[in-house]
Amino acid sequence: MTEDLTDIVADIVASMRSAPDRGRVAHYIPELAKVEARHFGIAIATADGQMVTGGDADMGFSIQSISKVFALTLAVGKVGDQLWDRVGREPSGTAFNSIVQLEHEQGIPRNPFINAGAIVVADVNLGGHQPRVAIGEMLRFLRYLAGDDDIAINEAVAASETASGFRNMALANYMRAFDNVRHPVELVLGAYFHQCAIEMSCRQLALAGRYLMLDGRHPDGGRVVSPRRARRINALMLTCGHYDASGDFAFRVGMPGKSGVGGGILAIVPGRASIAVWSPGLNASGNSQLGTLALEELSSRTGWSIFSPPVAG
Amino acid sequence: MTEDLTDIVADIVASMRSAPDRGRVAHYIPELAKVEARHFGIAIATADGQMVTGGDADMGFSIQSISKVFALTLAVGKVGDQLWDRVGREPSGTAFNSIVQLEHEQGIPRNPFINAGAIVVADVNLGGHQPRVAIGEMLRFLRYLAGDDDIAINEAVAASETASGFRNMALANYMRAFDNVRHPVELVLGAYFHQCAIEMSCRQLALAGRYLMLDGRHPDGGRVVSPRRARRINALMLTCGHYDASGDFAFRVGMPGKSGVGGGILAIVPGRASIAVWSPGLNASGNSQLGTLALEELSSRTGWSIFSPPVAG
Amino acid sequence: MTEDLTDIVADIVASMRSAPDRGRVAHYIPELAKVEARHFGIAIATADGQMVTGGDADMGFSIQSISKVFALTLAVGKVGDQLWDRVGREPSGTAFNSIVQLEHEQGIPRNPFINAGAIVVADVNLGGHQPRVAIGEMLRFLRYLAGDDDIAINEAVAASETASGFRNMALANYMRAFDNVRHPVELVLGAYFHQCAIEMSCRQLALAGRYLMLDGRHPDGGRVVSPRRARRINALMLTCGHYDASGDFAFRVGMPGKSGVGGGILAIVPGRASIAVWSPGLNASGNSQLGTLALEELSSRTGWSIFSPPVAG
Amino acid sequence: MTEDLTDIVADIVASMRSAPDRGRVAHYIPELAKVEARHFGIAIATADGQMVTGGDADMGFSIQSISKVFALTLAVGKVGDQLWDRVGREPSGTAFNSIVQLEHEQGIPRNPFINAGAIVVADVNLGGHQPRVAIGEMLRFLRYLAGDDDIAINEAVAASETASGFRNMALANYMRAFDNVRHPVELVLGAYFHQCAIEMSCRQLALAGRYLMLDGRHPDGGRVVSPRRARRINALMLTCGHYDASGDFAFRVGMPGKSGVGGGILAIVPGRASIAVWSPGLNASGNSQLGTLALEELSSRTGWSIFSPPVAG
Repeated sequence: MTEDLTDIVADIVASMRSAPDRGRVAHYIPELAKVEARHFGIAIATADGQMVTGGDADMGFSIQSISKVFALTLAVGKVGDQLWDRVGREPSGTAFNSIVQLEHEQGIPRNPFINAGAIVVADVNLGGHQPRVAIGEMLRFLRYLAGDDDIAINEAVAASETASGFRNMALANYMRAFDNVRHPVELVLGAYFHQCAIEMSCRQLALAGRYLMLDGRHPDGGRVVSPRRARRINALMLTCGHYDASGDFAFRVGMPGKSGVGGGILAIVPGRASIAVWSPGLNASGNSQLGTLALEELSSRTGWSIFSPPVAG
Repeated sequence: MTEDLTDIVADIVASMRSAPDRGRVAHYIPELAKVEARHFGIAIATADGQMVTGGDADMGFSIQSISKVFALTLAVGKVGDQLWDRVGREPSGTAFNSIVQLEHEQGIPRNPFINAGAIVVADVNLGGHQPRVAIGEMLRFLRYLAGDDDIAINEAVAASETASGFRNMALANYMRAFDNVRHPVELVLGAYFHQCAIEMSCRQLALAGRYLMLDGRHPDGGRVVSPRRARRINALMLTCGHYDASGDFAFRVGMPGKSGVGGGILAIVPGRASIAVWSPGLNASGNSQLGTLALEELSSRTGWSIFSPPVAG
Repeated sequence: MTEDLTDIVADIVASMRSAPDRGRVAHYIPELAKVEARHFGIAIATADGQMVTGGDADMGFSIQSISKVFALTLAVGKVGDQLWDRVGREPSGTAFNSIVQLEHEQGIPRNPFINAGAIVVADVNLGGHQPRVAIGEMLRFLRYLAGDDDIAINEAVAASETASGFRNMALANYMRAFDNVRHPVELVLGAYFHQCAIEMSCRQLALAGRYLMLDGRHPDGGRVVSPRRARRINALMLTCGHYDASGDFAFRVGMPGKSGVGGGILAIVPGRASIAVWSPGLNASGNSQLGTLALEELSSRTGWSIFSPPVAG
Repeated sequence: MTEDLTDIVADIVASMRSAPDRGRVAHYIPELAKVEARHFGIAIATADGQMVTGGDADMGFSIQSISKVFALTLAVGKVGDQLWDRVGREPSGTAFNSIVQLEHEQGIPRNPFINAGAIVVADVNLGGHQPRVAIGEMLRFLRYLAGDDDIAINEAVAASETASGFRNMALANYMRAFDNVRHPVELVLGAYFHQCAIEMSCRQLALAGRYLMLDGRHPDGGRVVSPRRARRINALMLTCGHYDASGDFAFRVGMPGKSGVGGGILAIVPGRASIAVWSPGLNASGNSQLGTLALEELSSRTGWSIFSPPVAG
């Protein structure tokens, strides 16, 4: 099977190389707009410890909203289910940066993967410390998960987000008015923008995601989160991981996944694989155009889907 | 394992019998308001052909919106992926009978499981015939799936829906204005109200749902839908099956499921089980209070969840 | 002054004749789409009993939503201020046929001049009778106000509305679900569609509106409504008479006015004039393009505006 | 008549003194919450140069949103009709601090009297200068209009607004994201919060409003704005001056008016009177409870309403 997987990945890389529509690179964060659309990378960490990669699997990219998965993992570790008093667990039906829902629901974001929800999670993770403490903790966490100390923040991207982050500033101030952001807005967003500016390769990201395929355990045997929480994070990725295209991703790909505006997607097949894909061009919903296609092809070729009977290894 | 399952089901039945909060029986369809809240039934059809039941598993109840799963299966069989030009695949973030989203999205319902979407599906299934033709086809389909010719429509419930169905009338007329309902509204709703008034027991419902755990095959070997479509119906049940509590159901139970206002829920564990629970009292989101709890307990006891590694049989 | 007014009206007619953009004739009611865009008419009934007309002032047109003013006058006569338990008095901020607001506010329309509100008013005016009784009453009322027995219903237009009135059917059914429409929907809409299909000329309409410039009195001395009610109907026309362009109409024209999709506008200068203009082409907000321009020019030339000090007669 | 007016005002003061429901003093700006609810003041500046006052007519209060009228007057003086590219002229149908509408309409506020619109106006008035320059200009303008150099800012209130102004911060940042706020948010809100914290008495406010009853002229003969603009500011006060209760105010009082959360209302009868009332307790819509009642009684007693024929002086 691992050999098969190598062939499948090679086919996908070839097929993506010639894809006619590569989507559009995000332009609202100036620094991200500089990345070239031609890149495509994929890395698959399997439950039996293999790693299969293809394309630009070792090139670093800005993980952006994919960081929300790891930030959520840290936050439930800190405050447990109390988090759910401040953030909902429902798909939003609206764009990633919508403020409408917040007004209708009194400053409680619909879920931890829309920007508003991730800002509340960042507020929780700040825990009275300075942003650099929270950012340091996040980096240490990712390095441990991936077993790779080279993961770092791209400061140019962080600065670029800070300068143009007016909508996030609006969201944070709005929730502060409802006392659902509790630290000074500048500090919370400082931590949040740096977390989004973390740079990882597909390989590093697939490695970092392994605990979600292993019911909460690090491959080294350490427990990252309880099985119940791992399952629930996967559930949230499935229902809310792709903003207002989450239903479509579930329909076409059938895996819990989280996309980032940098063009990366982390997808999980529980008990089977932790997958990272990356291609900077985005589709109309703001998710990686080729990344989504590649995962759809992977699901179709391997039979990996949480919605069908498990295939034999 | 099957013996274990028998014990688990017995425990669940006992635990539900003494549940302090049984929710509220739906009152907006007068005929449904007559059902007693004390009932609870459960039936599990396993992939290896066992049937484990508990409580009022053989008492008939109104399947209501659960019928939308079977209607969708018929409709994609008739018009294939063209259906998705007329119905979306995203969670709605709003109540089952909301009309707001329709106005914002030009008469295209968010998904086939909110009322508006199910009315479009009923319009497709009508296909130029009289309602009784469409209803006859639906009944034959369910009898075949469940292997039980006793499945029938409760005419008193159908009449009760017709008389009070003003919001559905509003939805249908509204979509007709956008040409997304194409038959006369009376005929479409005639078929729709009768489909909702089908009466089944937990046992019948669990049997009828088996094709969704078997990648689209009837246990008799016949193909009901392609594996791809079975998977996609499961995905839609997961993201949209419980209205604006779909995220919470995925989070707590972790199975594709579809609830009905009659208190039933059909839940699927691909490759493993087709499960029906029933208890008429509803929670604040309009889903069966005890049914949801029972499925949560079942998931917790068996480890069945699409978000965790498959457990050994 | 009357002579001056004659000149002003002649200038306006000339200026409208050569207007480059005449708007678009409404097409959603098939029968209305047949009217030619080139028409323009104006009629001004002054408080001192003069009548100044220009253009196609004697050509009949479908008054459509302008009928809502007269229907409201009848309804407050029947049920008094109790009407305001069922209909609001605020601008809606949305289109004339929006259903969104109804869902947010539990079936209570924002004001009596959006379609939903006018349907509630029609329900009140029906008062347990058959539609033809209510329609007969409305016709008698208009004939009395205008002193003209030739006012009648265009049955082809009424039939045309009935056939395509799906959105109004949706609104009525939706409010019926909240018990804010109390007669059978077919009867209420029957009356409503016929009321909208009344045909009047500018001359007839300006005559019919005189009680609103005369603090509620017919020029024959009879009291139509109390001064307080006349004032309040004018206030509603000002704030809600042009749907989501009411603010703009107040800003540019400065008179209470009510537009209809047939291209007519009735405008009132209290103590001074009752004005009717008609031109079938509509602007983007669904109000008569030339009618609005003509009233703006009239206001500018005469100084008539409720927002400036009264000009000397 | 002036004598009559004195009696009427005395009656109103007496009637307000014994009013059972005085509303609730705003508490979201801490400094405002300290004001006692028992106060009531009224001042009427007539077109013929009289001044009639009653109650606490000389006690200063925070004019808050009433300042938006004067800020708008300055802004149209600076940029003319270009202002309307950045701010709408329609009633919003939502609360004064709603952000929902901004998202639906791409950062363009519905009108200059909701907070978002007033922030854009403050951005225009800032014109590249420091907040203290803009604030100085506003104070000079008000002192000129009222002929009273004692008008000043309450710095404690300004500081109180700044500290709790998270929702305004959200609005401003949100519009900055759409480039509809063009100066740094801190500077714009600095000017805005100080403008809201201006303190005036009823007497001063009624004097300052005279140009709006005099078609744009200061009583000293100087032109403040053109007649057309004065009329349009009155129109905006009528349709948008009381947030989502503007329709009700027009219906009950029938005068262009602007309320502030400090409990003041400025109301205009063109050609007749400039009226200021003040009582700190607010009704459910956030407008002065007694202030509204007092104006309703004044309108009823004097016949002053823009919706009825002008009464003889």
